[in-house]
Amino acid sequence: MQPEMKQTIFEKIRSIYAVRSAMALHGWDQECKMPVGGGAGRAYIMAELSGILHKSMTDPDWIATLQDASVDPKTAPDMQACVNAMLNDCVRKAKLPLSLDKAIVNGASLSQQAWVDARNVGDVHLFLPLFRNLVHLKRQEAECLAEAGQSKYEALLQTYEPGMTLCQLEPMFDTLETGLISILNQLREQGRLISSPPYAAPFPKSTQSKFLGELLPRLGFDLSRGRLDESAHPFTEGMHRNDVRITVRFREDDILDSYFSLMHECGHALYEQGFPEDWNFTPLGEAVSLGVHESQSRFWENCIGRSHEYWEGEFPLLQQFFPDALASLNLDSFMSRVQAVHPSAIRVQADEVTYNLHILLRFRLERMILEGSLNIEDIESAWNGEMQRYFGLTPAHLNEGYLQDVHWAAGLFGYFPTYTLGNIWSAQIRESMLNQFPRFNGMVSEGRFGPILQWLRDHIHTHARRFTSPELMRKATGSDIDPQCFLRYLQERYLK
Amino acid sequence: MQPEMKQTIFEKIRSIYAVRSAMALHGWDQECKMPVGGGAGRAYIMAELSGILHKSMTDPDWIATLQDASVDPKTAPDMQACVNAMLNDCVRKAKLPLSLDKAIVNGASLSQQAWVDARNVGDVHLFLPLFRNLVHLKRQEAECLAEAGQSKYEALLQTYEPGMTLCQLEPMFDTLETGLISILNQLREQGRLISSPPYAAPFPKSTQSKFLGELLPRLGFDLSRGRLDESAHPFTEGMHRNDVRITVRFREDDILDSYFSLMHECGHALYEQGFPEDWNFTPLGEAVSLGVHESQSRFWENCIGRSHEYWEGEFPLLQQFFPDALASLNLDSFMSRVQAVHPSAIRVQADEVTYNLHILLRFRLERMILEGSLNIEDIESAWNGEMQRYFGLTPAHLNEGYLQDVHWAAGLFGYFPTYTLGNIWSAQIRESMLNQFPRFNGMVSEGRFGPILQWLRDHIHTHARRFTSPELMRKATGSDIDPQCFLRYLQERYLK
Repeated sequence: MQPEMKQTIFEKIRSIYAVRSAMALHGWDQECKMPVGGGAGRAYIMAELSGILHKSMTDPDWIATLQDASVDPKTAPDMQACVNAMLNDCVRKAKLPLSLDKAIVNGASLSQQAWVDARNVGDVHLFLPLFRNLVHLKRQEAECLAEAGQSKYEALLQTYEPGMTLCQLEPMFDTLETGLISILNQLREQGRLISSPPYAAPFPKSTQSKFLGELLPRLGFDLSRGRLDESAHPFTEGMHRNDVRITVRFREDDILDSYFSLMHECGHALYEQGFPEDWNFTPLGEAVSLGVHESQSRFWENCIGRSHEYWEGEFPLLQQFFPDALASLNLDSFMSRVQAVHPSAIRVQADEVTYNLHILLRFRLERMILEGSLNIEDIESAWNGEMQRYFGLTPAHLNEGYLQDVHWAAGLFGYFPTYTLGNIWSAQIRESMLNQFPRFNGMVSEGRFGPILQWLRDHIHTHARRFTSPELMRKATGSDIDPQCFLRYLQERYLK
Repeated sequence: MQPEMKQTIFEKIRSIYAVRSAMALHGWDQECKMPVGGGAGRAYIMAELSGILHKSMTDPDWIATLQDASVDPKTAPDMQACVNAMLNDCVRKAKLPLSLDKAIVNGASLSQQAWVDARNVGDVHLFLPLFRNLVHLKRQEAECLAEAGQSKYEALLQTYEPGMTLCQLEPMFDTLETGLISILNQLREQGRLISSPPYAAPFPKSTQSKFLGELLPRLGFDLSRGRLDESAHPFTEGMHRNDVRITVRFREDDILDSYFSLMHECGHALYEQGFPEDWNFTPLGEAVSLGVHESQSRFWENCIGRSHEYWEGEFPLLQQFFPDALASLNLDSFMSRVQAVHPSAIRVQADEVTYNLHILLRFRLERMILEGSLNIEDIESAWNGEMQRYFGLTPAHLNEGYLQDVHWAAGLFGYFPTYTLGNIWSAQIRESMLNQFPRFNGMVSEGRFGPILQWLRDHIHTHARRFTSPELMRKATGSDIDPQCFLRYLQERYLK
């Protein structure tokens, strides 16, 4: 390949990513800043941007150029990885008709807004027609994307975890289910499924905001290349490596809710800020998969953030900021809150032991919804049946039932399993670090996160999409994905 | 024209405006929210979006389609106005090479960021190289855009005030200059050029924020279709009629600074919220010119906001919110602050009498900069010479000299005159309302702005770009643009 040719391809790739970045900003703004009346216009703009993206990615000449570059032996390895990833995305996009692509973006934006309304008003019927329409569109998308022998669900799963099959997922999830239920039963038998009592005083929002704003740089987040906002549902959105935005939600009755959700999002954000500058606006400047993304967030939130060592250093600081709420607690009684295991209806409030059972429930239901074997009217009862089976409880309200997550409302079918993949990988990362750093626990208790972040940068962040996610994680951790490692980690932390 | 054809044109126009709207969101975000490290990436994204816009607007087939529709007698009048406006924009855009268009957007974004840095650090040399590059690009733009016999400056002026010529502007500005200097001299002779003393106490930012947030809906601003943020320099950005955003800057030592800048921006925002819904994302859903835009902001800020009648109703309310600062003042002493005339170095703090002299200064210098008869190194001394001539003062610092405005840094040459056009038109609007509403002053003192806003909606907002700006303002006010009307208004308010 001639250097000029390479340059042209590089520039076209970057221009495609510029539009994706523009869409990301619109997504962030819609959640954080947009006035409610702007919704219809926003859905329209998003659909137009997705149309532009579609046209530019699916141009046959462009795909042919990528194909040529992909097999050209003179293409340098990095550039080849970049071209291959782009080619993969473009070929996949070309399977979707433009009109369907735009209809999905528009439909997802409207359904998501209707979900907000339905939750606020407490009337699911505001949501159902738009959701039904979206599910219909997502089925069409799945049919377009499915390769030979692939189910609709597996076809959509590829959007979030490229290369992952149901044949790999199902046994892994079965192993996990058995293991988790066993841990849960042991804890129950020991009488240790206890919810935490209220604190002595609330945690004022303004103090939380200050405290958490200072926590971010301590964890390594670069505030000159990112920002923190408030939103109804915490998330991270990266426009590109130098503009990565975190949101948080404050609960005045429970600092740990805000605290761990911030640590979680910070883990995502550290990943995005760690992509290589030279490949900004290309596939080698973005996440390889959502499973790997989640491994980063859960590593910081759980492996680090829920460890005893972490709070040895952090708890005195937290006490200084919130003396009214915390002065009467000692580290051990605080840790019993940090590591409390207690089944609840809400996924994002779930502890490490029950969390993946929430995911399994969603994984099974969303397959049925997409494949058409579960009617939309019947989601509620199916959901409640599973909640009974796992946790013996029934959601008090649909907002604590299947309306609790935005994912389905936004059309993100096939997304949930990546949470569990991330949890498993996070435990493997931790095990690798324990081997790598003899003083790992000491570093954590001293708040010396520099070497830990550098390890993540070197082994994971900097590689972006250079390898597939199983390859990347095998290189980083030395082993294939291993639910047993995750179960060992839970047993060590919660049963010892 | 066949109905389907009309539909296709309409949809293509809307898709062009969707990209413009996306650029507007990026502009707003850059000023209000973007982390500083995101700047280079943002400039790149903006340039890519402008490239997409350029390609789609300048496609020869598209321009030919518009030309056909423009002369088709079967096109309905509204649609014809819409098509003509779009055609005009596309033909104009087609005069600019794509590479130049993108270079200007990128160059303006970088120069603007360098302007911020230069102001913060106090070193103009951080700004000059990027500014020099931008001026160079803007000259090229002007050469591309200039029609036969048009100067570079007049060519760029068309971007902001279509159809306005220097032959119209210059005599109008000369009349104004003579009249304003005469008023200023009379006030000076009467010993009435007095700056206001400090207030008894500061105006806490949080209270200002609450008070001003409540002021917006009282003026008619629909908060469900807009929002208020803080930024270094107040501005209004409309993504579309249902998402119009105002920014404000708080000065704790002077509520009137925040107050009038908010009223000003609210005037802009009311215009944008008043465009017709049916023509959202089309030329009939946007401002006809910046002069008309400014007539709306200055009408609210000055004609209403600096009137005695307005504060009869508003001052008691303001006193309730800020008792420490205002309890010791009565309405008359407060009005002497509201209507204080005092030459100062800063345009945005200028009173109604001196304001347009600031504009005349900029108008003359920017013509010379663009035409190449004033070197960039010599702007400072030329600026200071004019400040001496008009006001007998020298800026203490470049930030109070030619670095005070973002316009040149953003490449907006030809923009300043529209401020003065807006001032003139605002006085004409006021005169029309006084004729229309016998109880106009009573309505203002009672805070009954509904009929006033409705008049603006009916006579100006709803027409968007259906007429040229002189046509529109002639229909609304019954006369051509008339600097004497503005001078009469000032004489009445300040010399009686």
